[in-house]
Amino acid sequence: MRRQADASRAHVLRAAQHLLMARGPGALKLKDIAAEAGVTAGNILHHFGTIEGVQRALIARMARDVADKAIAIAQGTGTNEMRMAQGLDALFAVFADPAAARLAGWLALREEADSLEEVQKALTDALDAIQSADRDRQDRTRSPDEVRAFVITGVITALGAGLFGPSLSTLVGEHETYARDIAREMLRRASLTPPGWTKRPPADGDPSS
Amino acid sequence: MRRQADASRAHVLRAAQHLLMARGPGALKLKDIAAEAGVTAGNILHHFGTIEGVQRALIARMARDVADKAIAIAQGTGTNEMRMAQGLDALFAVFADPAAARLAGWLALREEADSLEEVQKALTDALDAIQSADRDRQDRTRSPDEVRAFVITGVITALGAGLFGPSLSTLVGEHETYARDIAREMLRRASLTPPGWTKRPPADGDPSS
Repeated sequence: MRRQADASRAHVLRAAQHLLMARGPGALKLKDIAAEAGVTAGNILHHFGTIEGVQRALIARMARDVADKAIAIAQGTGTNEMRMAQGLDALFAVFADPAAARLAGWLALREEADSLEEVQKALTDALDAIQSADRDRQDRTRSPDEVRAFVITGVITALGAGLFGPSLSTLVGEHETYARDIAREMLRRASLTPPGWTKRPPADGDPSS
Repeated sequence: MRRQADASRAHVLRAAQHLLMARGPGALKLKDIAAEAGVTAGNILHHFGTIEGVQRALIARMARDVADKAIAIAQGTGTNEMRMAQGLDALFAVFADPAAARLAGWLALREEADSLEEVQKALTDALDAIQSADRDRQDRTRSPDEVRAFVITGVITALGAGLFGPSLSTLVGEHETYARDIAREMLRRASLTPPGWTKRPPADGDPSS
């Protein structure tokens, strides 16, 4: 029975995610999700309690997806620096989908984001995996605090780029992915610069360095 | 007459901004703004056309405020590096007010942000001032493209920190400003690292550098 309930929930969430991607957070209405999933509204309420329950479950599922990707990258091969770049790419790819960034933004506007235990669990799991992987490598070892600061900044910047990037790119006359691409590049640069470091790095081949 | 209309508009916008700060974007309703401003709803519609007109004017006013601050800093004294740090502080301070970030987020969710001519004008003015100031200094001169990339990343990160920072900070068990503080520090680091630079900077006092 439990497994069947899980399958029903997953089916409804897939339908809700499809609606979200196609039509934005405003389309996440009970009757629309029911129509998309081919179930009754009562069935959805049975599994999720309220329409907010569906929306929160959707965010939780997306957070878990991102966390699982981050954990796989953390446990993969390569130097810390290579894995960091892969992690940034994966993170920015998730919120390159405007629907994902918009759902997160919509949740933040409702001031409910900090009450999501599943999101917290996903974030903590990803942080633990990355901090642990960082400790085990020889190159560019960072303190757990530094890893956490970098991950949180990455999440904020990826979310901000997903939500505001296309508009800002258009406002300065650039193609839609401009803002996202340069924000990711800035984060990459920040990751190469250790904390507390304030001097100008030498230019390549600069003889005065 | 024009001056009186401007004063009426400004009065309504102050009332709307007060409501926004106190109660969030959801409180920006015509009758609430009218009550707060002590005018009729008809008077507001006369000046702004629709409630969306009030909201857009509010965003435009906030963008202009930020741009004017950025321009004053760009034209102020100090090295590029000092002015850049001042600019980052000013930018993050604006969106440290959750209401400001939430209004911008609310606008982004409605996909109207790229239709705001006043926001575009404010952004362009600020970019011009910063690029021009950068050219005139001797230290750390950056190309106009590099300045623009840094400013756009700054805006995205400050918006992301304003909207998602408090929730993310809470999720990792930190005080409310944690995410904003570390995101600003990461940007500061990125600004110290020139484009294309991929090597690890020397640690202070590292004899191998």
